[in-house]
Amino acid sequence: MEGFRHIWPIEVRFRDLDAFGHVNNAVILTYVETARLRYLLDLDLRQPGGGWNNIPFILAHLNCDFRKPVHYGQTVEVGSRTVEIRRSSLKMEHRVEADGELVAEGYGIIVHYDYPAGCSVPILPELRAKIESYEQGRVNQAT
Amino acid sequence: MEGFRHIWPIEVRFRDLDAFGHVNNAVILTYVETARLRYLLDLDLRQPGGGWNNIPFILAHLNCDFRKPVHYGQTVEVGSRTVEIRRSSLKMEHRVEADGELVAEGYGIIVHYDYPAGCSVPILPELRAKIESYEQGRVNQAT
Amino acid sequence: MEGFRHIWPIEVRFRDLDAFGHVNNAVILTYVETARLRYLLDLDLRQPGGGWNNIPFILAHLNCDFRKPVHYGQTVEVGSRTVEIRRSSLKMEHRVEADGELVAEGYGIIVHYDYPAGCSVPILPELRAKIESYEQGRVNQAT
Amino acid sequence: MEGFRHIWPIEVRFRDLDAFGHVNNAVILTYVETARLRYLLDLDLRQPGGGWNNIPFILAHLNCDFRKPVHYGQTVEVGSRTVEIRRSSLKMEHRVEADGELVAEGYGIIVHYDYPAGCSVPILPELRAKIESYEQGRVNQAT
Repeated sequence: MEGFRHIWPIEVRFRDLDAFGHVNNAVILTYVETARLRYLLDLDLRQPGGGWNNIPFILAHLNCDFRKPVHYGQTVEVGSRTVEIRRSSLKMEHRVEADGELVAEGYGIIVHYDYPAGCSVPILPELRAKIESYEQGRVNQAT
Repeated sequence: MEGFRHIWPIEVRFRDLDAFGHVNNAVILTYVETARLRYLLDLDLRQPGGGWNNIPFILAHLNCDFRKPVHYGQTVEVGSRTVEIRRSSLKMEHRVEADGELVAEGYGIIVHYDYPAGCSVPILPELRAKIESYEQGRVNQAT
Repeated sequence: MEGFRHIWPIEVRFRDLDAFGHVNNAVILTYVETARLRYLLDLDLRQPGGGWNNIPFILAHLNCDFRKPVHYGQTVEVGSRTVEIRRSSLKMEHRVEADGELVAEGYGIIVHYDYPAGCSVPILPELRAKIESYEQGRVNQAT
Repeated sequence: MEGFRHIWPIEVRFRDLDAFGHVNNAVILTYVETARLRYLLDLDLRQPGGGWNNIPFILAHLNCDFRKPVHYGQTVEVGSRTVEIRRSSLKMEHRVEADGELVAEGYGIIVHYDYPAGCSVPILPELRAKIESYEQGRVNQAT
């Protein structure tokens, strides 16, 4: 999948289909969530000293174009990349392909969040550096 | 619904249907879970001093007969009752009706559990009394 | 809910929550889907002679801002309205409230679709008239 | 997984977890459904001339023991086998393991069903032979 370094395979489950016989739209967003979490874990964007669920980000905005239906039996992959690092949020783009064809694409804004304090917090230089390094300089910095 | 004092309505969502156009079997068990949690909260079987999620029970066994498919637009209700109080578990029966007709029935065993200690614990007399009182003497006691 | 004539209540199920203890983002979009389908059925925007699932629309685009987490036990309502009728698609806005407070808002583009033919088709005058009448003139027409 | 020839891997998604932080019980049954469908397809127990969804079986009964919680990040596998072929139904056993440890086990009864006719139908010799062959003689025949 061109332009994406992080690609995550998804197995379509029968339960993902809806009464029209293809993968339900909200489930496509679950696929994206599944891939986004893997991205955050694979880049180790966690709080120091925490487990997998110590991810200091919450989803604030979602935007998705549904291009084609996804069917049972297709091979699905989700590409994820950070395209912009803002003061206290990331803009991440996602591309969903089934059998190599584009089926959905969109982006999300995830906010760097301090759960105990209950508010957004600036993205620290260490996190910026990890993302920069992984995305190999293709990410905008907007502090 | 005869024999059940606790009856909980469920709204069938489009997402509950599967590719065969009726409510998916696993979703029927989500309906039962939804009703069971309401039962536990309505009888106030929580730990003292906790919120809604301070329910000291975990599901250990599930048994279900699926009698008829459930369709979008039907009125669904789940009946729940405790039929047996054992040393450290409850046997609860459930009946699912759609438009007044039986569509599924079954039972679950839920174990009284001490999360911090990580083990099952006996059901205290206060909990027994609450269940007895609600079920008006139709529950077996097996200590 | 001001500005929305069509308001649909949703019961939060335990299964709607995720590991962070609030309603999962993708499930919010299932709430919106649930409300949108009710809207389409309540305005009778079906194909002539079909059942509830004879809805000639598919979701092409989705845009959502998540404002606040939704918790178990809250009273959730989804407002839906058509704000624009295009040649062969509708722009629908949605507002999700929990206990009377805004928790998410967004819009979707649904395309008027001829399933047998496999392509989008213009929205017929009868459908336009039904939407116009329901929304009482507050909808843009862009043919 | 000893005793099972058909073993299907499941990737735990974040959405599979519930508010207690482990895989929801009903989702375990979705895992089993996912594996059962693969079993039916892998043994080609379809109606002649149909697609993947031309599976002439419906779930009539489900029985499950939940032994341990399943966590995000664990490697999950579901074993499936037919243990009994009855006149017009199959008894299938399932075993769910996470990181090689038993987490759930149970069985289901699936009925051989003629959808157009709306009734159960006897299991034909061809289907019996396919199951017998796959399970290598370890299945009971009860006609």
